[in-house]
Amino acid sequence: MNFGSDNSSGVHPRVMQALVDANEGAAPSYGRDDLTRRACDAVREMLDAPEAAVFLLGTGTGANALALAQMCPPWGRIFCHRTAHIETSESGAPAWMAGGAQLALVEGEAGRMTPATLAARIADYPQEDEHDGRNAVLSITNATEWGTVHDAAGVAALAAVARDAGMTVHMDGARFSNAVAATGVSAADLTWRAGVDAISLGGTKNGCLALEAVVFFDPDHARDFSFRRMRAGHLWSKHRFLAAQMLAWLEGDLWLTLARDANAAAAELAAGLRGAGFQPTVPVEANEIFIRLPRDLVTRLRAAGLRAADWPTAGDDGAQGTIRLVTSWATTEDEVAALLRAL
Amino acid sequence: MNFGSDNSSGVHPRVMQALVDANEGAAPSYGRDDLTRRACDAVREMLDAPEAAVFLLGTGTGANALALAQMCPPWGRIFCHRTAHIETSESGAPAWMAGGAQLALVEGEAGRMTPATLAARIADYPQEDEHDGRNAVLSITNATEWGTVHDAAGVAALAAVARDAGMTVHMDGARFSNAVAATGVSAADLTWRAGVDAISLGGTKNGCLALEAVVFFDPDHARDFSFRRMRAGHLWSKHRFLAAQMLAWLEGDLWLTLARDANAAAAELAAGLRGAGFQPTVPVEANEIFIRLPRDLVTRLRAAGLRAADWPTAGDDGAQGTIRLVTSWATTEDEVAALLRAL
Amino acid sequence: MNFGSDNSSGVHPRVMQALVDANEGAAPSYGRDDLTRRACDAVREMLDAPEAAVFLLGTGTGANALALAQMCPPWGRIFCHRTAHIETSESGAPAWMAGGAQLALVEGEAGRMTPATLAARIADYPQEDEHDGRNAVLSITNATEWGTVHDAAGVAALAAVARDAGMTVHMDGARFSNAVAATGVSAADLTWRAGVDAISLGGTKNGCLALEAVVFFDPDHARDFSFRRMRAGHLWSKHRFLAAQMLAWLEGDLWLTLARDANAAAAELAAGLRGAGFQPTVPVEANEIFIRLPRDLVTRLRAAGLRAADWPTAGDDGAQGTIRLVTSWATTEDEVAALLRAL
Amino acid sequence: MNFGSDNSSGVHPRVMQALVDANEGAAPSYGRDDLTRRACDAVREMLDAPEAAVFLLGTGTGANALALAQMCPPWGRIFCHRTAHIETSESGAPAWMAGGAQLALVEGEAGRMTPATLAARIADYPQEDEHDGRNAVLSITNATEWGTVHDAAGVAALAAVARDAGMTVHMDGARFSNAVAATGVSAADLTWRAGVDAISLGGTKNGCLALEAVVFFDPDHARDFSFRRMRAGHLWSKHRFLAAQMLAWLEGDLWLTLARDANAAAAELAAGLRGAGFQPTVPVEANEIFIRLPRDLVTRLRAAGLRAADWPTAGDDGAQGTIRLVTSWATTEDEVAALLRAL
Repeated sequence: MNFGSDNSSGVHPRVMQALVDANEGAAPSYGRDDLTRRACDAVREMLDAPEAAVFLLGTGTGANALALAQMCPPWGRIFCHRTAHIETSESGAPAWMAGGAQLALVEGEAGRMTPATLAARIADYPQEDEHDGRNAVLSITNATEWGTVHDAAGVAALAAVARDAGMTVHMDGARFSNAVAATGVSAADLTWRAGVDAISLGGTKNGCLALEAVVFFDPDHARDFSFRRMRAGHLWSKHRFLAAQMLAWLEGDLWLTLARDANAAAAELAAGLRGAGFQPTVPVEANEIFIRLPRDLVTRLRAAGLRAADWPTAGDDGAQGTIRLVTSWATTEDEVAALLRAL
Repeated sequence: MNFGSDNSSGVHPRVMQALVDANEGAAPSYGRDDLTRRACDAVREMLDAPEAAVFLLGTGTGANALALAQMCPPWGRIFCHRTAHIETSESGAPAWMAGGAQLALVEGEAGRMTPATLAARIADYPQEDEHDGRNAVLSITNATEWGTVHDAAGVAALAAVARDAGMTVHMDGARFSNAVAATGVSAADLTWRAGVDAISLGGTKNGCLALEAVVFFDPDHARDFSFRRMRAGHLWSKHRFLAAQMLAWLEGDLWLTLARDANAAAAELAAGLRGAGFQPTVPVEANEIFIRLPRDLVTRLRAAGLRAADWPTAGDDGAQGTIRLVTSWATTEDEVAALLRAL
Repeated sequence: MNFGSDNSSGVHPRVMQALVDANEGAAPSYGRDDLTRRACDAVREMLDAPEAAVFLLGTGTGANALALAQMCPPWGRIFCHRTAHIETSESGAPAWMAGGAQLALVEGEAGRMTPATLAARIADYPQEDEHDGRNAVLSITNATEWGTVHDAAGVAALAAVARDAGMTVHMDGARFSNAVAATGVSAADLTWRAGVDAISLGGTKNGCLALEAVVFFDPDHARDFSFRRMRAGHLWSKHRFLAAQMLAWLEGDLWLTLARDANAAAAELAAGLRGAGFQPTVPVEANEIFIRLPRDLVTRLRAAGLRAADWPTAGDDGAQGTIRLVTSWATTEDEVAALLRAL
Repeated sequence: MNFGSDNSSGVHPRVMQALVDANEGAAPSYGRDDLTRRACDAVREMLDAPEAAVFLLGTGTGANALALAQMCPPWGRIFCHRTAHIETSESGAPAWMAGGAQLALVEGEAGRMTPATLAARIADYPQEDEHDGRNAVLSITNATEWGTVHDAAGVAALAAVARDAGMTVHMDGARFSNAVAATGVSAADLTWRAGVDAISLGGTKNGCLALEAVVFFDPDHARDFSFRRMRAGHLWSKHRFLAAQMLAWLEGDLWLTLARDANAAAAELAAGLRGAGFQPTVPVEANEIFIRLPRDLVTRLRAAGLRAADWPTAGDDGAQGTIRLVTSWATTEDEVAALLRAL
């Protein structure tokens, strides 16, 4: 019963097979190989963005921090939700890589900023000058850290606020697959058509071994980005093994199938939890469930094999605590059933 | 009627005379001169801290950013009030100099964190690990950006919260003189005796030309700081001219006299404003007054010679707006009287 | 006839199989899994360094830059050969990650500093103070960028010069396997027993997919390094796939076998070249050959399928140019024979 | 007999008087005052560069590092003489402020690069890509650290090499006054007319208290520089006191008179030394003299009151050592005569 993290799941067999298949003979290093060319084309196709600049790398923190460093001057401010991964879990990577930029945290229920909370936060910095710095980038996490989703209209509304304030828009898409699966729209609808300038597109949590992409929809925004990726140590020498993952992941929309499976498992689990009288504390829209349970029940479930993270949340007390359950492409019906039985 | 900023006031005649006097013959450069030795001793005496490490430099942003860079690892978090100068007005300097550290903003009325608001904010980051980073430094501004003051007990209470969380304590003392004058305690009582580890001690706003000091009460905390100051370009070559300011400023407690004068002018002006039916929106405890006035009145006052900054604040509307009035050592009774008359 | 780079070779079948095998079920992420524990133990065993701190990551530039950032203060100086990879090919990564440290380039024939050239260069910076900065780290590349090798005595002699100057010693071991194979001594003899404090241990060029390790022989030197790795985006979430590579690579000394094979192929090729009347311009001690050939011959060889990099070198002219031939674990006897035949 | 450094001299009386005069009443802070506007105009006039962007600050290291950070991307390379101040004496400031840029050191007699040595060094980095980084800036020190001077043709020749390599040109003008005085050409001839894009213009060593300017001849190159200056803590709040120095320094070409005086004192001293049988080891072209003397003679001169720095140089031995003698605007004929007498 592994609901600890989508990062603890393995690699989808088709992705692993692609690694094996790519391991034939020699190939030019550092992304000058044919697989990489094809993989970048495939990303452009997935995003319906034929002009986009695409860069592959191995980690989500690398992708986020480098994308934001590209978009934000050192004296700039990056607006994000107060629970965004770039704020809570990357040890200051974006601020560092961007030369000392600052995050401006925005409130909002269930991991989602709203146009109103974003606009109010921007209004805290009404002026651009050498003391005040510059409002530079909005970073939207989709799906959010709380398993909720911004639909295309929601992204567009936030992006419009950013645009009006002279900022560009980044999407932390570590779980972008799940957002696309949840909203049922195209990847393009959820990104550039909604006003997103760049996305950190995550494969690792959804069936890959170590694969992320940074995509700039306007290639002019990618100027010199190759230097940034290299000097951060994120240009793989045997680059074909990033590319092979991407090609397999995109082939036949595997990425979307896997995300749908993960979301469906979460929905099924949430339904079962509700049936057992336990209401998730946050709407279950993608592949994460947050739920408050009696602490002794959690202890018993763990003893029965449950893996899930404690997620201390306002409202918890000595008797009850919140945990996070994450499903992935690898979650089985048996695991869901076993957890519901154990309850 | 200059109430625009204490930075727009000039240099006290005794400080200026000290510059003239110091300009005799040659002196070793880069702080190896006798005046510098004496000035650092004088700072230690003022703070009753015979072991403290003292570094002189020319700007408050330099002092704050370098002190915090020394105290905070790149993956650290600096807690400060959401209106702290290091957050609002230094263009990200501390974050940059500290290698990408992040500010964690704390709420609190009238520019003051409370132990409760601070503790609550620290609790947002309950864990130290490579993802979450480290809670490293508390920075207390005293006097605050809103002209209020933390007294010794107030500083000690905040410092205790920080200490309990494993953090060290920095004081942004750009207006430390005003805080000492307002509280009536000693400089030591308001700093190290209350748990402060380092202070950015400001002279510029209070009668100097360009003079700040960074003081580490435990000299072990100052290890390699001289490298930081140099490579940030903050080691003056003709260092005696920093030292001369400091000696004159401390001589006969000039610093305290000037701060008392500034505070007294603010108190008098506030009293007059109240008498005229205008209540400051924030307690007037040091040398700043925030007051909401009819906009047409502000226009008329400016026409009559008032210099004061607009300070847009929640509660303002089309008819009424908040302005900031700052007094300094150079504020005259005539200026105060003229403004009250003009009202 | 692929002699372009050891980075263009693929992944050894046993390493690839280990990835497949590791892909069973779920595993804790971010290095908290059992495979990672075992892999780090195996590295310690390989280095006969039971106390060493071991960190796995995916790229050599990441490994070098992070190790050096850990070892060198921002105001420090890193001494390295003027053709070291950290100088020529990492786009300034170590300087950046170390907060603005500087490289001091040392001359030396065939990619090797000597104790004398190193000592002379250190003597250019005789003094440590806030202007001059600090002589902090020596970085030795072994095998060198020119396919030569420092034996254990050679490393020890350089390390002694560094130690005398108060510096610590880093080894860029992107081709460390080849150096061990060439010298016939143990990994320990070539590192900590010779005075090396930390090594960037490279697997990628020698049969792995993406695998490097940073090892600090004194675990006290690794303090907070986990923060550095994370915020540079070099902590893999599915960390078991780094660990699996390492375990397979070390199992049965596969790493050494592969390096010996690569070195042997280079030796054989060099012998053949000499037999054909072409003398390598640099001693062939590991897996690289530098050779000056008639330009039209190079053109013909390339037409016949040769992949090798142009390596413009003093002494080249319009008629003759230097190329670099790199062998790897994957180089076949057929490839060597084919190239010699084509000559 | 103070020949220790031009930094150990004081402030010229006219500059000091200007500080006193500027201390009248209030003035807008942070450079929004009238004196600053006039001072920047005066700099533009001095340089015959009506469009230039001018920024005042207090230290030479600040000026150099900020100018270079503006001109050089983080992955760029700054070419400078191996004895340039930015290499030897700024503790890595430019590299740090430029986000990890690297210095590429160029050889050359007497502190001067030549077009040939520069071109040869650039040729070490023939290629721009994400590994190799970018050749970005040439920094010429004028007068050099060895008291020699690049004349206008010399600057132009170096700048042409840089321009051909796609680089821009910075001048470290800490002693620019002395170079202008020595060459007898205009400030414009020695800078933008010779191909210089930006200069760090130094006043401190030549009669000011703490005054430097960064000038970009093309104002487009200054985009966002005000943010850089602020966040490095180099925007003085009481900015009028920078401006007042500049106005007095430029008024009636005081800067040039003072530099001529300093150069003349050096020439006279050098002549006297030669007369006494001691030949300077480097041509005396500005205000510095390097001379090898018997060590016991140096000891006796110091006992007699000489202040001068030891300057260990190849060729020194146990019996003889090189010292540096620096003259300044404040050097008196008596001092020169006294030193010659003491010899």
